[in-house]
Amino acid sequence: MSNSTTVPEQFSGYAALEKQGDTFTLEKHSYTPRPFEDDDVDIKITACGICGSDLHVLRAGWGPSKYPAIVGHEIVGTVSRAGKNSGHQVGDIVGVGAQCNSCRQCAACKDNNENYCKKSWCATYQGPLKNGEYTQGGYADYYRCPGYFAIKIPEGLDQKVAAPLLCAGVTVFSPLKYYGAGPGKRVGVIGIGGLGHLGIQFAKALGAETFALSTSKSKEADCKAMGADGVLVTKDADSLLKEYAGTFDLLLGTSFAPDMPFDTLYMPLLKPRGHIIQVGLPEERLPGIQPQAILGKSITGSLIGSPADIKEMFEVAVKHNVKPWIQERPMSDAQQAVQDMHEGKARYRYVLVNDQ
Amino acid sequence: MSNSTTVPEQFSGYAALEKQGDTFTLEKHSYTPRPFEDDDVDIKITACGICGSDLHVLRAGWGPSKYPAIVGHEIVGTVSRAGKNSGHQVGDIVGVGAQCNSCRQCAACKDNNENYCKKSWCATYQGPLKNGEYTQGGYADYYRCPGYFAIKIPEGLDQKVAAPLLCAGVTVFSPLKYYGAGPGKRVGVIGIGGLGHLGIQFAKALGAETFALSTSKSKEADCKAMGADGVLVTKDADSLLKEYAGTFDLLLGTSFAPDMPFDTLYMPLLKPRGHIIQVGLPEERLPGIQPQAILGKSITGSLIGSPADIKEMFEVAVKHNVKPWIQERPMSDAQQAVQDMHEGKARYRYVLVNDQ
Repeated sequence: MSNSTTVPEQFSGYAALEKQGDTFTLEKHSYTPRPFEDDDVDIKITACGICGSDLHVLRAGWGPSKYPAIVGHEIVGTVSRAGKNSGHQVGDIVGVGAQCNSCRQCAACKDNNENYCKKSWCATYQGPLKNGEYTQGGYADYYRCPGYFAIKIPEGLDQKVAAPLLCAGVTVFSPLKYYGAGPGKRVGVIGIGGLGHLGIQFAKALGAETFALSTSKSKEADCKAMGADGVLVTKDADSLLKEYAGTFDLLLGTSFAPDMPFDTLYMPLLKPRGHIIQVGLPEERLPGIQPQAILGKSITGSLIGSPADIKEMFEVAVKHNVKPWIQERPMSDAQQAVQDMHEGKARYRYVLVNDQ
Repeated sequence: MSNSTTVPEQFSGYAALEKQGDTFTLEKHSYTPRPFEDDDVDIKITACGICGSDLHVLRAGWGPSKYPAIVGHEIVGTVSRAGKNSGHQVGDIVGVGAQCNSCRQCAACKDNNENYCKKSWCATYQGPLKNGEYTQGGYADYYRCPGYFAIKIPEGLDQKVAAPLLCAGVTVFSPLKYYGAGPGKRVGVIGIGGLGHLGIQFAKALGAETFALSTSKSKEADCKAMGADGVLVTKDADSLLKEYAGTFDLLLGTSFAPDMPFDTLYMPLLKPRGHIIQVGLPEERLPGIQPQAILGKSITGSLIGSPADIKEMFEVAVKHNVKPWIQERPMSDAQQAVQDMHEGKARYRYVLVNDQ
């Protein structure tokens, strides 16, 4: 088999040319990728999910962004060129999440914690490159990265459905697994969006009793269809606590709201030795916690997952039929799809699809 | 052996009669203890440590206090009356920490987490009693409580030295043990006072490489004598991070300062999967944390320890010669000793001692 099909000199995608506000403008943009190395693959992109991070970066909400910015880090496609040390073959179906490289030598990397590498974490877009440039993401036709971070998509998993698992999926799967979600445990998923709808499914797949926590009952039917054992409305904290105080082993926080009730609701819902895992990354500081509220409990953050986590997640997803609920949009419709995502219309993930 | 020696009808101690300010006034005060029950013991107090909590409560810093208030919850003494279901004999040498009762039926209690019982946690002083009264503490001649919470002091451990282990000791031991302090782990103890000087000793006893983190080098010689492998000065965060960023498995926070640098120093010092355990309970909220700083790391609080933790702690203390550094003060000098504690003069724990 050939180790290459025709890959263009320039890759083309949809970029923000400057900092975005409440209205998004993405322009067609071509760039020359960094030089191909022996451990790289080029991926002809089939589909790319739209992640909340994309919007934060387009709007420079987490800090300065570099423009032009092609975002997108839920990339699935076909290997069209495979370096001899890439571990892949032309024709492999692979996916890339939010991280496209790490040092692969530090203690964190050697310990399967590449997602916490402090030496040379390279983000799938906006990440620093040796040549002084930065990575461009998956709202495009092609993507180049080390094969180590391109994970094989299991057979039988639709490429478009697989895309949101690469970031949103592993972001919820990795900490649920690490903190022991499983039989005999009660898990609450706070916020029912791109992350939360996968949190419910993975918590159930891992065997935990799973509740959705939401500001209203409007998504109740969806949550039940995702497998939730119940939907708890967080607006009336007192009555919720009357029944559920001290009964949750884990809370998975996917909300981005600035006024999250850690002290008055989340911490009291936890059992002793319980954890709240905040995976939604607000642009503001987390609220200061009352020291008494955190006694015997913990709050932790979690950042995506390692390549090993992604592989394990795919196994669990296939075995337990975990599936992102997606709405397909043509890649050429990226601008409007981002706008719709910003307006909260996604149910529950938009996936941009290239013409094949 | 008799199951009782002469126990007076009234117990006598040193009480604050009203909310204290920056100057402390304790008056001699007698009270009638609640009725003796079959699972109770009366303890003739030999010694009682002065804990930071005592000062918070005397000053009503954590919320309203009830007066008259006899504080003190590092109590050691001799059982002078033993209920038939108390598990003790007259003459036993026992100690009581900050908790004197719990429901002993809930999931937390059955799981050796009595210190996190939510149903009927009874504090050693200021705790609610069935008769509408509240518990009075150990700056006194006698103490009455269920034998379950009176832990035998191991032979060979001096009663006065044992006293501070009942609260300060188990407060640091319990989370160090739970979070895996041991060989191959690096632990940092933030703040070198009553809690911190025991944190250093227990982290070493458990086999961890142990650093003291302090605002200055003034206690360096003491820290080394306690077993610290090094003393790191926290004032210059940048140069500290240059050498130590990402190298600590655990940080034990014993400081009460309101401006603790969680984001800029503590979190960055931790390895991926590291934890900061805040055992010092400030009167203010903990500072709000930047979401990025907590990724892959956690902050947790910890409240004293269970009876099982206290027993295990005593075994470790005897085996590894962990000893509170104490300064003895006569019980009649309680007022001045509290004042000196308030002024930061303790090196590192005052223990009030009754005439025998």
